[in-house]
Amino acid sequence: MRVSVVGGSVVPAPVETIAEDLGRLLAQRGHTVVCGGLGGVMEAACRGAKDAGGTTIGVLPGEDRDEANPYVDVAIATGLGHARNALVAMNGDAVIAVDGGGGTLSEIGYANVFDRPTAGIRTQQVGSLDGFKPCDSPEAAVAFVEDAV
Amino acid sequence: MRVSVVGGSVVPAPVETIAEDLGRLLAQRGHTVVCGGLGGVMEAACRGAKDAGGTTIGVLPGEDRDEANPYVDVAIATGLGHARNALVAMNGDAVIAVDGGGGTLSEIGYANVFDRPTAGIRTQQVGSLDGFKPCDSPEAAVAFVEDAV
Amino acid sequence: MRVSVVGGSVVPAPVETIAEDLGRLLAQRGHTVVCGGLGGVMEAACRGAKDAGGTTIGVLPGEDRDEANPYVDVAIATGLGHARNALVAMNGDAVIAVDGGGGTLSEIGYANVFDRPTAGIRTQQVGSLDGFKPCDSPEAAVAFVEDAV
Amino acid sequence: MRVSVVGGSVVPAPVETIAEDLGRLLAQRGHTVVCGGLGGVMEAACRGAKDAGGTTIGVLPGEDRDEANPYVDVAIATGLGHARNALVAMNGDAVIAVDGGGGTLSEIGYANVFDRPTAGIRTQQVGSLDGFKPCDSPEAAVAFVEDAV
Repeated sequence: MRVSVVGGSVVPAPVETIAEDLGRLLAQRGHTVVCGGLGGVMEAACRGAKDAGGTTIGVLPGEDRDEANPYVDVAIATGLGHARNALVAMNGDAVIAVDGGGGTLSEIGYANVFDRPTAGIRTQQVGSLDGFKPCDSPEAAVAFVEDAV
Repeated sequence: MRVSVVGGSVVPAPVETIAEDLGRLLAQRGHTVVCGGLGGVMEAACRGAKDAGGTTIGVLPGEDRDEANPYVDVAIATGLGHARNALVAMNGDAVIAVDGGGGTLSEIGYANVFDRPTAGIRTQQVGSLDGFKPCDSPEAAVAFVEDAV
Repeated sequence: MRVSVVGGSVVPAPVETIAEDLGRLLAQRGHTVVCGGLGGVMEAACRGAKDAGGTTIGVLPGEDRDEANPYVDVAIATGLGHARNALVAMNGDAVIAVDGGGGTLSEIGYANVFDRPTAGIRTQQVGSLDGFKPCDSPEAAVAFVEDAV
Repeated sequence: MRVSVVGGSVVPAPVETIAEDLGRLLAQRGHTVVCGGLGGVMEAACRGAKDAGGTTIGVLPGEDRDEANPYVDVAIATGLGHARNALVAMNGDAVIAVDGGGGTLSEIGYANVFDRPTAGIRTQQVGSLDGFKPCDSPEAAVAFVEDAV
């Protein structure tokens, strides 16, 4: 299936490591990684996925698909700015959030709107949102979304 | 200033009352109400604002501006579906959320992205998001955003 | 009704004069001018409309509503870039194009998609598009769209 | 390179044949076909491309990527409705239009906005638009865009 990985574009090294491990695990499990195509969590998840021979899709905010990080296989330019967050959530069968601020929160909200099971690793607490589960590792997050879809 | 009021499209009566009081107070204070143009919190806030002689703007998800609730002065059709949530947050100088689920959460996330001070009445807890303040009444919410802008 | 006026953002003085006359005439006839909110044809049409006491709406490509020209009454920021052209066409009951290049052509195309009667003054020839009528003056254009809606 | 193929979603059989030949030729020449993901010209171009072992991307108007025609390799849901036309033009290095009405015209307009060389086979006449060339066959259209990019 497709799993959208969302999170900050500038994050501390330990968060990048989590995102890279997550991307690698998703690819090993046969899933395609969808993301916003830029840096930070997005780039780390794509790097991990490519390291494991997986496939990655980046849905970019800008008009130029060359803005995609080097680990994106299929870059889609949108020119929509932050409104592209809706498309990132929509294009996964499930969503996994890693860290992140307001933009990531908008994607968690959209995941709920589109009925996508969502796991959060080190994300904002988002109360009792249906279908959202805080997880403490990539393994737990992937297991949750595999089970939920 | 413009204040975007966001919240569920189907809400219990007490939440409607809060939203209507909020809309009325915003209009009394000279603010324009921006919202998503549909029912529930959106309609109640517009009704309150019009009751106090205010002005209302509805940014709709669909292509038909006749879908706006009857208290919207300026209806803007977008045809963008849920991606229009970005526009709702963007078009206020501040955001006040009342109740609501995933869509509202996406708007709170966007408010943070666009640096809009945001008050939440009975919303999802959203952890430690910068610029977000839980408030327990329309008065507190309006006071917070007036002070923050 | 609402009439969307579309055209280039940088245009020769005679084209500005046509757009200003068009905006003035629309306002005199009781119509609201919708446009893309920026310069050139958009600004001239708004200036004409305001000169006649009319109302103007500007649907902007950027995230900042302060980018609107000074004759826009209600500025709507979208952050969508050129994709906002769809919204400009959608928010009029009819469309009148003045001069313009590719962006204007996209709006003429959208006008057809949304079944909006469309008059073109000095625009690209667009073959035999249903509902599109080349006109040689603001008077002819306004008469055409009033009759067609 | 990527070539966006745009055209009507319901077209006569001879137009489908042209679109299928065009898709096949693009794939044979090593190009990826980008399209709006639905039927008519879009589906025929994808079918031709797959017949020649090529790769296809479909940028859909709706929220459900299962709406893509069966010859789309990478389906991207947008939920943007007709505003997704901007994304279709943006995601090709060049655009080739086949037949089509208002929606196709909007894409030709966008191709000009984004400086994409554009060939038109049996399309609307669009006057003297820079970068647009009427062509009478898939071979001529592909040769034109290969030369122009």
